[in-house]
Amino acid sequence: MDPKLKNAMAQAAELVESAIARLLPTTDLPEAVLYDAMRYGSLGGGKRLRPFLVLTSASLFGVGEECAVRTAAAVEFVHCYSLIHDDLPAMDDGDLRRGRPTVHRQFDEATAILAGDGLLTFAFEVLADPATHEDPNVRCQLVAALARAAGPHGMVGGQMLDLIAEHETFDMGTVTRLQRMKTGEMIAFGCEAGAILGKAGAPQRHALHAYAHDLGLAFQIADDLLDIEGTEAETGKGVGRDAVAGKATFVSILGRDRARAQAEMLSRQAVSHLEIFDGRADLLKAVAEYVVTRRA
Amino acid sequence: MDPKLKNAMAQAAELVESAIARLLPTTDLPEAVLYDAMRYGSLGGGKRLRPFLVLTSASLFGVGEECAVRTAAAVEFVHCYSLIHDDLPAMDDGDLRRGRPTVHRQFDEATAILAGDGLLTFAFEVLADPATHEDPNVRCQLVAALARAAGPHGMVGGQMLDLIAEHETFDMGTVTRLQRMKTGEMIAFGCEAGAILGKAGAPQRHALHAYAHDLGLAFQIADDLLDIEGTEAETGKGVGRDAVAGKATFVSILGRDRARAQAEMLSRQAVSHLEIFDGRADLLKAVAEYVVTRRA
Repeated sequence: MDPKLKNAMAQAAELVESAIARLLPTTDLPEAVLYDAMRYGSLGGGKRLRPFLVLTSASLFGVGEECAVRTAAAVEFVHCYSLIHDDLPAMDDGDLRRGRPTVHRQFDEATAILAGDGLLTFAFEVLADPATHEDPNVRCQLVAALARAAGPHGMVGGQMLDLIAEHETFDMGTVTRLQRMKTGEMIAFGCEAGAILGKAGAPQRHALHAYAHDLGLAFQIADDLLDIEGTEAETGKGVGRDAVAGKATFVSILGRDRARAQAEMLSRQAVSHLEIFDGRADLLKAVAEYVVTRRA
Repeated sequence: MDPKLKNAMAQAAELVESAIARLLPTTDLPEAVLYDAMRYGSLGGGKRLRPFLVLTSASLFGVGEECAVRTAAAVEFVHCYSLIHDDLPAMDDGDLRRGRPTVHRQFDEATAILAGDGLLTFAFEVLADPATHEDPNVRCQLVAALARAAGPHGMVGGQMLDLIAEHETFDMGTVTRLQRMKTGEMIAFGCEAGAILGKAGAPQRHALHAYAHDLGLAFQIADDLLDIEGTEAETGKGVGRDAVAGKATFVSILGRDRARAQAEMLSRQAVSHLEIFDGRADLLKAVAEYVVTRRA
């Protein structure tokens, strides 16, 4: 990985880690186990790609760190809730996540359901708080955009499609739509959040939107490739599950070589949308290159 | 039930029913089953107490119907999501809700988890939309207050306590806190939402808050009484489940007679907080009487 990017991602991960720990303190209340499960499911791991995109896009518009970090934490809460629910026995039935037992394995199923519900709800509490931005219009835009990205028209709808994919054969168009909803919309929100926080103009918002669109698809194709090429030790989660479940993926439809070529084309296309920022978006360019070359 | 109240509740239920149907239209998208499950879990039943409280409190401050109805629907989405998740096998394992199979029985477990997640997320999308209120500050207050009422400090935390209650013996103080979090905070939000929408002054907000606090506890004690005294045909859901689970409830701690007396005292106390509205809050008074005398 580009050393500058590596450094910036590590810094972003540290910032969001401490923000999560601060926003979700441990407690000695009788329901402490709920907070323990929420912390377990959101602290200590992951690439923190979405928070990184929030912080990096926010820095393009001179957004204050506290605003950006709170928004980054909210996005990560939603991402982590989705992983917790996705890992449940009735869903993907995952035992391992980020190299550790999944939340329902470490605690129990009921606690995992509630920890997910709690993280999702808390994300909106964080965004609606005046500490996230002084302008209530900005906060409302963040709430509305995150809810759209995470809800039935976005991530939740994508999860539903993903379940249907186990017993129906999707064509390339439907797989693209599935992936765009399941992971693309949240990645796009990460990029657009900075523009919302910074009250950016339409051309810059559109550029980030187009960048995020391509980045999200490239990311997902790379994920599909990792699912068949990666090892459990590298990815920290079970691999080969899509093939076992008989799901149509970019790789199963296009084949490995064309899938890899497609991911690389999307990565270059993502970078091309950033020209409007005159070289100030080097980190976003580097991340578009990184997502298609990563090994985990 | 007081005929005026009966009429007003029926009218409110109809308004929120059509708002839900409008906000969640059927679709022929490949993920249509998600919308079917969300509609199944939120349409066609229930007392619609929380929407009624939103509409009635909003009418005290001359709030426009569209604003109030959208907010009422959002509160009901959150209430219905909580029922769907609460009924899951890993939680209360309910087969029957509002006289029909629960969502995971009618569809499947994964779809029920996603339908709940979708309703919760969509509630915030509805509240943050300018159609709910022209003032973004009002919308942010609604989002923040609903997230607090529904999240770890409110409903989700109360659900966690409720699970813990199955294997720990709680005292009266903890049972009161549990119920306040599990159902009280959402009922309180229903009452306060009208004041937020109407930009009411502090004394009126405080009066509604105090009313809602007492109403919520009275409601819950009555619920505990129904759990041992009601029949499945009357309540439309399984009864006697708390006793079977060995959970401490107001009734198990206080006994039936003292529990009933406590509920009636709280109902009268709730009514007393409404004096500030000079007889304009008769419906809220009637509802406080209704919740402790209802049979379902």
